[in-house]
Amino acid sequence: MEEASGVRMVTGNGENSYAANSRLQEKAILETRPVLRKAIEEVYTSLSARRSTMVVADLGCSSGPNTLGFVSEVIGAVRSCTRKSEEERRAVEVQFFLNDLPGNDFNLVFRSLEQLENLGGKDTPPYYVAGLPRSYYRKLFPSRSVHFFHSSYSLMWRSKVPEELSSCTHLNEGNIYIGKTTPPMVIKLFQEQFKKDFELFLTLRFKELVSGGRMLLTFLGRKNEEMMTHGEVGTLYELVAESLLSLVLKGRVEKEKLDSFNVPYYTPSVKEVRELINKSRLFDIEHARLFESNWDPQDDSDGDVVLDYAGSGANVANCIRAVMEPLIVDHFGEDIIDDLFVVFASIVAKHLEKAKAKYPIIVLSLKKAT
Amino acid sequence: MEEASGVRMVTGNGENSYAANSRLQEKAILETRPVLRKAIEEVYTSLSARRSTMVVADLGCSSGPNTLGFVSEVIGAVRSCTRKSEEERRAVEVQFFLNDLPGNDFNLVFRSLEQLENLGGKDTPPYYVAGLPRSYYRKLFPSRSVHFFHSSYSLMWRSKVPEELSSCTHLNEGNIYIGKTTPPMVIKLFQEQFKKDFELFLTLRFKELVSGGRMLLTFLGRKNEEMMTHGEVGTLYELVAESLLSLVLKGRVEKEKLDSFNVPYYTPSVKEVRELINKSRLFDIEHARLFESNWDPQDDSDGDVVLDYAGSGANVANCIRAVMEPLIVDHFGEDIIDDLFVVFASIVAKHLEKAKAKYPIIVLSLKKAT
Repeated sequence: MEEASGVRMVTGNGENSYAANSRLQEKAILETRPVLRKAIEEVYTSLSARRSTMVVADLGCSSGPNTLGFVSEVIGAVRSCTRKSEEERRAVEVQFFLNDLPGNDFNLVFRSLEQLENLGGKDTPPYYVAGLPRSYYRKLFPSRSVHFFHSSYSLMWRSKVPEELSSCTHLNEGNIYIGKTTPPMVIKLFQEQFKKDFELFLTLRFKELVSGGRMLLTFLGRKNEEMMTHGEVGTLYELVAESLLSLVLKGRVEKEKLDSFNVPYYTPSVKEVRELINKSRLFDIEHARLFESNWDPQDDSDGDVVLDYAGSGANVANCIRAVMEPLIVDHFGEDIIDDLFVVFASIVAKHLEKAKAKYPIIVLSLKKAT
Repeated sequence: MEEASGVRMVTGNGENSYAANSRLQEKAILETRPVLRKAIEEVYTSLSARRSTMVVADLGCSSGPNTLGFVSEVIGAVRSCTRKSEEERRAVEVQFFLNDLPGNDFNLVFRSLEQLENLGGKDTPPYYVAGLPRSYYRKLFPSRSVHFFHSSYSLMWRSKVPEELSSCTHLNEGNIYIGKTTPPMVIKLFQEQFKKDFELFLTLRFKELVSGGRMLLTFLGRKNEEMMTHGEVGTLYELVAESLLSLVLKGRVEKEKLDSFNVPYYTPSVKEVRELINKSRLFDIEHARLFESNWDPQDDSDGDVVLDYAGSGANVANCIRAVMEPLIVDHFGEDIIDDLFVVFASIVAKHLEKAKAKYPIIVLSLKKAT
């Protein structure tokens, strides 16, 4: 049985690792903190007995500071619930499952768990952290055994590249995702793959959640029904394709290799997501919104000004490399990787001269329908 | 919080890895299969509802074929329960937790899980495999959440070297465990550490088990109350100490380094174990026996003849290296490791000329007391 798409972040904690280049994803956790707190509070309140266990799973946990960051956030949220409910004191234990594909660097996560020990102190609930290596497009848990699912910066990855696109390699010539020259029929293939994956995801998680269970899902999306708005992932992948093309022109990469490379990805609009959830009748939408996050993970400003194009280009390149390197190496080999991201950094810098670019990010808080 | 003793097997699956040198441990799994089947059957029968989950944990799972071997064994056992109980068909799901210290090579385990997929077929229960990185001398699970604990070739490891022995490094001069020249007071320190660890282990697991829950524990022990019977671990560690001493004489290792090295280990007798269990009143002993396993993992014969001393010496050295290398490297550095095990192999060969050596192994099947 194939474990999805070969998608995995750069392992370890070296210079190019995901662990050292995941500030963008960290910001999303901060941005969604109030929604997380609210969801945990509601799960806590719904626990029936005075003595019970809350099972929490992070899907697409990856490895690095954010993986533990999520665990701390939940523990903090449970701790404040305990404090609020002084009169009716509950002995809640929290069991965490950190889930990702088997290629994820779980050793790194496990060996950093002791950093959490300092969380201790009064009111900290007993908690236990397990790793669960498996695609979340498969069953992960026994029926009705999970209270809360979380997933951040992961659900835009597809379970695979659409089949027709893998077998017929020239359909999306010169692109690696949906680009300006992508034929409508190929756009549809990406969309269909998303629909299939997302419906499957909802069905699986519905079965695994206890009654009253919740999910908080954060992932890259689109602002509207247009495909190529400035700042969206489509435009970013066009720049990656452009960088690859420049290596084709230098004779470093075969044109055919580029044409046959497609990323298992899709960023939906809020409307698309809402429609699928409503159609499924499996979840009630408690909260749905979209926020924006600068491409440059080091840029915390709200405005539309880019101060240092070259610097931002390099920052974006580091961030995308941590996420894309394994997929690119699997397809193109290791030799081009350094040069590719040098080219990419300068192409991004030029792109930012047109206008500052921001990713749209969808936040969804869902409750299992009764 | 310190995660125990630095005990970990050699990672990866290379020539010297534990994964490639764990035949001895594999034999124990085969030897205990009938007891495992019986225990699983009883747990299965005790599951109340027609639809339920069996939570199974392997403590000290390590990495390699045996880790998955245990999972297959349990799935096989559940499958035959399902077949037997045709009339009253139950939808049992099995949730596995593979536990070891955070230094264990969980990545290797996780990336080999897909080998289990071929287990499929009619009557195979849905199952899920998680990794749980933490010392089992700490709390691992929420209260009353586990049905079956298993531990094979692990419980003879102590949570740490007895404190007095770590701080006062000359107490056990020339030995690395209990040897012929070990003072009685030091033997007592090892015994006390065992008592403390084992009592803690029983208390923790008692709390984590559901009512009717069971444990199957297999670990190296002693045939009787004597400490230095031929074939027992005490004599094996004397040969390791002798090998280290030969490097001291060659000026490769400082004498002080040897004197300050002690292994966090203790092999109890069945009598010692029974006494602790009975005193705790936490478990009923359903089954307790001792079997023997040749030092040479490649020797499957029952007799007392060693056919090839040098060959057996090398086999024993490979096996012990896979288990001891990380501890030795932590203390003595990497430089001596190859030479040490060359010397050790020839010392073992000479030792086997006296008589074939066999480890005594204790098997305990316990049921949570009501």
